[in-house]
Amino acid sequence: MPRFNTLPAKVEKVFNIKAERVLHPFSPLTQQEIKDAAALLRKEHPEADIHFKCVTLREPEKELMKKWLNEEEGSKLKIDRKAFIIFYIRNTPDLFESVVNLETETIEFKTKLDGFHSCADGEEILQIERVCLEDEGVKAEIAKLQLPEGTVVLSDPWIYGSDGVSDERKQWQCYLYTRPKDNADSNHYASPLPISPVVDVVTMKVVRIDRLPLGVDDKIEHHKPFVPTLNEYLPEAQKLRTDLKPINIVQPEGVSFRFSDNGEEIEWQKWKFRVGFNYREGMVLYNVSYDGRDLFYRISLSDMAIPYADPRKPYHRKQAFDLGDAGAGVMANNLKLGCDCLGTIAYLSFPVADDKGEPMVMENCVCVHEQDAGIQFKHMNYRTGHSVLSRMRELVLQSIITVANYEYIFAFIFNTAGELSYEIRATGILSTAPIDQSIKDSPNFGTIVHPGVLAQHHQHIFSLRIDPAIDGFGNKVIYEEAKAMDPKDPFNPFGTGYYITETAVDTEGGFLEAPENNRIFKIQNPKHRNPVNNKPVGYKIQAPPFQKILAAESSYHFKRAEFADKAVYVTKYNDWEYFAAGKYTNQSRGGHGVREWCKRGSKFDTEEGDDVVVWVQFGINHIPRIEDFPVMPVETMRVHLKPVNFFDKNPALDLPPSTQEINKSVLTSATATSHHQGGGFEAQVGGDGQISNIQPTNSAGACC
Amino acid sequence: MPRFNTLPAKVEKVFNIKAERVLHPFSPLTQQEIKDAAALLRKEHPEADIHFKCVTLREPEKELMKKWLNEEEGSKLKIDRKAFIIFYIRNTPDLFESVVNLETETIEFKTKLDGFHSCADGEEILQIERVCLEDEGVKAEIAKLQLPEGTVVLSDPWIYGSDGVSDERKQWQCYLYTRPKDNADSNHYASPLPISPVVDVVTMKVVRIDRLPLGVDDKIEHHKPFVPTLNEYLPEAQKLRTDLKPINIVQPEGVSFRFSDNGEEIEWQKWKFRVGFNYREGMVLYNVSYDGRDLFYRISLSDMAIPYADPRKPYHRKQAFDLGDAGAGVMANNLKLGCDCLGTIAYLSFPVADDKGEPMVMENCVCVHEQDAGIQFKHMNYRTGHSVLSRMRELVLQSIITVANYEYIFAFIFNTAGELSYEIRATGILSTAPIDQSIKDSPNFGTIVHPGVLAQHHQHIFSLRIDPAIDGFGNKVIYEEAKAMDPKDPFNPFGTGYYITETAVDTEGGFLEAPENNRIFKIQNPKHRNPVNNKPVGYKIQAPPFQKILAAESSYHFKRAEFADKAVYVTKYNDWEYFAAGKYTNQSRGGHGVREWCKRGSKFDTEEGDDVVVWVQFGINHIPRIEDFPVMPVETMRVHLKPVNFFDKNPALDLPPSTQEINKSVLTSATATSHHQGGGFEAQVGGDGQISNIQPTNSAGACC
Repeated sequence: MPRFNTLPAKVEKVFNIKAERVLHPFSPLTQQEIKDAAALLRKEHPEADIHFKCVTLREPEKELMKKWLNEEEGSKLKIDRKAFIIFYIRNTPDLFESVVNLETETIEFKTKLDGFHSCADGEEILQIERVCLEDEGVKAEIAKLQLPEGTVVLSDPWIYGSDGVSDERKQWQCYLYTRPKDNADSNHYASPLPISPVVDVVTMKVVRIDRLPLGVDDKIEHHKPFVPTLNEYLPEAQKLRTDLKPINIVQPEGVSFRFSDNGEEIEWQKWKFRVGFNYREGMVLYNVSYDGRDLFYRISLSDMAIPYADPRKPYHRKQAFDLGDAGAGVMANNLKLGCDCLGTIAYLSFPVADDKGEPMVMENCVCVHEQDAGIQFKHMNYRTGHSVLSRMRELVLQSIITVANYEYIFAFIFNTAGELSYEIRATGILSTAPIDQSIKDSPNFGTIVHPGVLAQHHQHIFSLRIDPAIDGFGNKVIYEEAKAMDPKDPFNPFGTGYYITETAVDTEGGFLEAPENNRIFKIQNPKHRNPVNNKPVGYKIQAPPFQKILAAESSYHFKRAEFADKAVYVTKYNDWEYFAAGKYTNQSRGGHGVREWCKRGSKFDTEEGDDVVVWVQFGINHIPRIEDFPVMPVETMRVHLKPVNFFDKNPALDLPPSTQEINKSVLTSATATSHHQGGGFEAQVGGDGQISNIQPTNSAGACC
Repeated sequence: MPRFNTLPAKVEKVFNIKAERVLHPFSPLTQQEIKDAAALLRKEHPEADIHFKCVTLREPEKELMKKWLNEEEGSKLKIDRKAFIIFYIRNTPDLFESVVNLETETIEFKTKLDGFHSCADGEEILQIERVCLEDEGVKAEIAKLQLPEGTVVLSDPWIYGSDGVSDERKQWQCYLYTRPKDNADSNHYASPLPISPVVDVVTMKVVRIDRLPLGVDDKIEHHKPFVPTLNEYLPEAQKLRTDLKPINIVQPEGVSFRFSDNGEEIEWQKWKFRVGFNYREGMVLYNVSYDGRDLFYRISLSDMAIPYADPRKPYHRKQAFDLGDAGAGVMANNLKLGCDCLGTIAYLSFPVADDKGEPMVMENCVCVHEQDAGIQFKHMNYRTGHSVLSRMRELVLQSIITVANYEYIFAFIFNTAGELSYEIRATGILSTAPIDQSIKDSPNFGTIVHPGVLAQHHQHIFSLRIDPAIDGFGNKVIYEEAKAMDPKDPFNPFGTGYYITETAVDTEGGFLEAPENNRIFKIQNPKHRNPVNNKPVGYKIQAPPFQKILAAESSYHFKRAEFADKAVYVTKYNDWEYFAAGKYTNQSRGGHGVREWCKRGSKFDTEEGDDVVVWVQFGINHIPRIEDFPVMPVETMRVHLKPVNFFDKNPALDLPPSTQEINKSVLTSATATSHHQGGGFEAQVGGDGQISNIQPTNSAGACC
């Protein structure tokens, strides 16, 4: 058993870890391990300038981990620490992946990849920005716009996407904007320019300058002089409200969670789990259990696709896969106390690798805190007036990423009723395109959010990967539906009845939600039955219905976003099959993600349970409002995982009741009064079995 | 202009109001007005024993109110205060409604109703409980169960519902339960008995004793001896968790909201609105505006239907309309400081009338408080590392009702981004039915949640009534959908495009949601256009899709739940058309609610706007889990009303940034470090229009 620090939790930084620490097989690579892995790889290629794209933990094979997890602490088998590396030979298109064994100091695996492109990195983006602005052709085009003197021009490199046409080379589509010279933090998205250079990554040269359509059709007009106008989100540019009084979250006895293993293992309210972090998924949860019972082996956001509605060149290629094309880990914000969260907060930091294979610590990239979440349950006995009320508490693990213009706030949220949720708040700044400043009426594929600024419609479609272990390994997926009984059925003479059906997912595949049938997907352990009602123990998935990808099946948008056409995919587990749109999404052309994997048609053992992986899709179709500019109020989505006949009663029942003594609320005026509620009649059974003593119910007094 | 108290707000209780207070036309009746109205009615019927069902404000006709609202403060026309009264002549089936003018002291209107039954009241329920338990036939049936000596038997009267068969008389269906004699707050729903007496309200006699089926079919077995077993929700019966540390919400400078007009008018963060309260709807909001611009004339929960899945007699009639059959106002809990909410809280109290026409103050039936709601928006400039982040604040008006076994937590939630939400949390105790204790496998219309206890599936379908005034009167409803562009369209050569369509609701009717089309209903003011993008100003409705009522169209469940078959109904405004399932839901047979009204087929003026009323349905199909027993963790639903092109930019933009100075968060360990993020390149336009000076972006420093 791991030992826990006493409160307040002492969180050692992972990057200060002493060498003698025994790393858990799921511990992210340490800084030293990143250095060692990169060095081993460099040794293998002494002549090459290696451009590292990732140096990350190669997670152990699941069968190996199952053995390891089963063994006693102290006598566990040794699992070699390994690194998974993706790299280019710098300034060439040659992409490789490699597995480095850090124990044996050997290269276990190396392969050259053809037809794939790896993700961006910060260094690459900076270089593209410079190359684009230094290009003489670009300068000439900008000159034609006759921008006011002192205007600063910026280039936001966008991943190129794919339309299947002449894009075998890795390229970047740069969108240009301006800002006034005296404000580096001005919102340049309010003044998009009508030219878009394309940069080749290998040659680091501008290969083409796309001219952007400025009307509501696809015509390309002659350049006109352009006078940028401002639309700032900075607080200094606003007349701020002065009447919002502070709210402070005070935790006088500290937090209820406990860290061990340098913050990577967390215990809170019967929950226990490990936190990992990598360049691509950001936060990953491992070995999530509740009250000693397994729930999830691994859970993480797998990818997201953001296809845009505008069909015109070059926007027809505009589709981001922010995790696959860039990475939630490398884009994670350094979270600030009293800014990104309220209350008593712990921060976790994890290293990733930079383009030179050097460790780069993502400081405070995950914050951990508790929050009150309103009433968990209440009942008042109307006869006695006695109320029972407990408040819900949540434990939040939050990470925020910035993807150029946009922000995503990701959170795993555990609660006191055995529920685990994944929340995304979408915020940040809309990706904007230029439109003639004289046009007032928006085209039907976008919204004018500022004069000269079009925010194109776009979908955000996320894929949450759940590798379940509900009450242990060997699970199945079913969906339940509610259906009307036949009003001609003699069992249903008044036509009011309805019933539930269950359909087992017995083959790999994708499924739609069906709110009209109350379709609920459940992950069950068929071998474990609820002791009271004999139903298989399980967890259900509650995800908001969403519009599936609108791009035509024949389009590359559709082919590339392999998960975006179904609410739920279920696949058979394979080691390292983590990413719903495939390992390499940048300029991908499809065929390497979850839709493709389902073509295997693997059958599941629904009697004994099987090694299923569940991919839950959710999202929004963002038809921009002007209210989403210049920075967008959050749009919140939550996927809930809730127990269904997993426990034998409400698991929150042992929450202490909510009392003023603990909560210390304050009355704004003397309006609260004690008013006894309740009343009823009861009768008592006597020795003769007859009821008698019919009398008003006595109150035991109010609980709170 | 009304004057506001300074903070901390001094909230005078409505029932302490001085006579000289000039009541707003929307002010609920005062205690004195209730007394006066009842006295006037009694004077009209000197010989009769009047059984009052409601004495409530007769709201003014809308056309009159529109005039009143338009007039200057101080020179407003006088609107007579009136009471609307529903009453029986006690112990007769004779039901009347009446309008009493409190200014002229006259009865303006009185009518005898045929074929309608009024709601329950507390006195009636107590009497039914007693009658049921005193009945000799009931005693004889209970004796057959050979209950252990000392067992206490309780009767929960349930509204009778209707199957169209011999139910012209108002009756109650009583469900019987037991509890141990030493604990008045024991959870009796864990031991339902297999008999169910029916009581006639006029004669106050048991007219029939239904025997309940105990199997999974509809057979009625011989009575068997019954030994109750316990399943308690009381904290004293649990081994409580001891490791949940307190969270206190501290508001050192008090609250940000201001009351006027005795707490009935509230201003907060540019929002301004009136709160009303009545016996049936509970909370009602009037004249909701934002920053001086009208939004909603009146908004309230209109009704709810809870049809049950079990087709067997007498459960085939089990369908509650908790607002129409009982009333959210009269069932409202007396909320307790530090228990039902955290932070700095204000409470409002309102009077309703009892069965004798006497005022009965629902003390602390509405609580008002603010809460932090996480991040409202964030953006980090990746070039400079400069972050801008503001936190969302919410103002919550909460009311909790207890309907025998069940609780609903209702809340209107305003936020700092111009959004108004209506939240329902369902909690309390499942309505239970007996099942043979030896049966382990649940039937497909219910879940066994305890040995001998069946919780039948049921739907909760709510109807939120929105009487809009988006930027003034004269509104229209449209729905927007997103559709794929034809991949054969030359404008869409790569098949990636999509576009939005708008359909105006030009005739009264009901509509389904269509998440597969991203169908969004919007309420717009066609005469007011957004100054930037020329779109009509509007608010959109975001409600979670739900399964419509499953009962057959031929069934009385379906006929009675007039709103439960559509996501949105739109009707033309008529005075006092408030209740989606009709004014009298108790044993109703349909034909008096929103579905019926739509048969008028009134046309809307979609050019000029019209007087539309929008009924938004939402809900859940509750397939009980064992985790929902003995008390249910909240199931939360929210309907959001969000501005769409109503403002000219993000209305939350002027929120002060989130800073540690204000928030005073606490670090649990020394892990937070200052890590400068950011980097990028920019180029400046010179006098020749050419860009030059390509250089790294300078940071202005982090915001927080």
